[in-house]
Amino acid sequence: MKNTPTILISNDDGITAKGIETLVKVAKEFGQVVVVAPNSPQSAQGHSITIEDPIRIYRNTIFGSNVVAYECSGTPVDCIKIAKNVVLKGSDIDLCLSGINHGSNASTNVIYSGTMSAAMEASMEGIPAIGFSLLDFAADANFEAAEKIVRQIVRAALKDGLGSTKLLNVNIPNVSFESINGIRICRQAKGYWIEEFKEGKDPLQRPYYWLTGKYEYQDSGEDTDIWALENNYVSVVPVKHDLTMYEALDSLDHFSSKV
Amino acid sequence: MKNTPTILISNDDGITAKGIETLVKVAKEFGQVVVVAPNSPQSAQGHSITIEDPIRIYRNTIFGSNVVAYECSGTPVDCIKIAKNVVLKGSDIDLCLSGINHGSNASTNVIYSGTMSAAMEASMEGIPAIGFSLLDFAADANFEAAEKIVRQIVRAALKDGLGSTKLLNVNIPNVSFESINGIRICRQAKGYWIEEFKEGKDPLQRPYYWLTGKYEYQDSGEDTDIWALENNYVSVVPVKHDLTMYEALDSLDHFSSKV
Repeated sequence: MKNTPTILISNDDGITAKGIETLVKVAKEFGQVVVVAPNSPQSAQGHSITIEDPIRIYRNTIFGSNVVAYECSGTPVDCIKIAKNVVLKGSDIDLCLSGINHGSNASTNVIYSGTMSAAMEASMEGIPAIGFSLLDFAADANFEAAEKIVRQIVRAALKDGLGSTKLLNVNIPNVSFESINGIRICRQAKGYWIEEFKEGKDPLQRPYYWLTGKYEYQDSGEDTDIWALENNYVSVVPVKHDLTMYEALDSLDHFSSKV
Repeated sequence: MKNTPTILISNDDGITAKGIETLVKVAKEFGQVVVVAPNSPQSAQGHSITIEDPIRIYRNTIFGSNVVAYECSGTPVDCIKIAKNVVLKGSDIDLCLSGINHGSNASTNVIYSGTMSAAMEASMEGIPAIGFSLLDFAADANFEAAEKIVRQIVRAALKDGLGSTKLLNVNIPNVSFESINGIRICRQAKGYWIEEFKEGKDPLQRPYYWLTGKYEYQDSGEDTDIWALENNYVSVVPVKHDLTMYEALDSLDHFSSKV
């Protein structure tokens, strides 16, 4: 790694969100920061990419003159792709940080999360990546404790790497720094959304449905991210992008055939 | 399972795509078919969901009077959520089929794929699910061989289940049925997209970038989906939604702390 590492930053709440500001502030202490982030909120965009339309990027100076920042018309994953292949073409990227997301990406939310998808895209392209989320959906969430946690984790990542993974999902409980009990390495908790659709009528009296719901955990393990967060620990889950369920390979012989 | 299973069908190419028509045709032979599919192409939408806007569904009869079909203004994942929670609220869904996608979803494409995300969403909600893809992007692709493969796989799934997984990623080579050597249970091949952005100027001379690229495999294993497809086998990969990289849990002690 170079003496001054290049740190790419993105998010899914958009380039003007409070959470990314905290991330940029901390990252500037460690290296040369390049931001490519969506110009509109992209929560729950998952690993969506833009293929039917062109993407645009616009340079801006909202993070000051030391930070190369672009807002991008695409999804979080688009931001990473265009950062690597256009903005930073030919340069090494030492670390990608995504977030700080306003709201949890623990448990299976990792699958829906634009924040984590940006980080996953970076990791798929070989860049060590960390997604950060604070358990507070509010636009004016308090990132003071999160800032200290991010600093500690980024320092450890730049010094000693990400172990044998390329991607970490870090969630931070919404409590004061003094109330945080520590940082725990966890597995992803089992759980899923129980949806309700709020049915309504538009001004022309046509029906619409609006997604809502609550998250239900189905996991009582004390080694999960959910357990950690409920007990005021920061959760760190190593993430992979090989989705093969290896343990099921031997249970599918009835599909295998000569045709 | 009931004598007449309820089969939910969706896709990401849109309700008027040729691939879903083949899937509906086969599924009707086995059970009561309900289609909820996007009213516009949603390729590469990943696990995107719609939370900032309402969703609309419209009943139609394009698959004949025996098939309950709705087109939906949302993403593939939205389609599954609204099918389960509105269209089929309170009813059991015995199997979810997604596709047949026009184009490959092998290797890490499973992560970008709207087709596979619809199937994954169903599996996360406890519904056994299969995503089908044919290795031909053309709108008028020939689904004759795929139809026979789908029939064979759906029959086996309804008779004997999906083993110890809830989700299969099935890819079908673009060759005649006679040229298909069989069906193989596989793991997801390693690989990634090498992107280029085609740079252009819009009519007002403002720059834009359009995503393009080619897929590069980084895997020489003969147990992968890519190997199977290149050797004219149908690939069947069991898929999970626990993204924890368990093998990395012990390599991250330098992050773990008391704060």
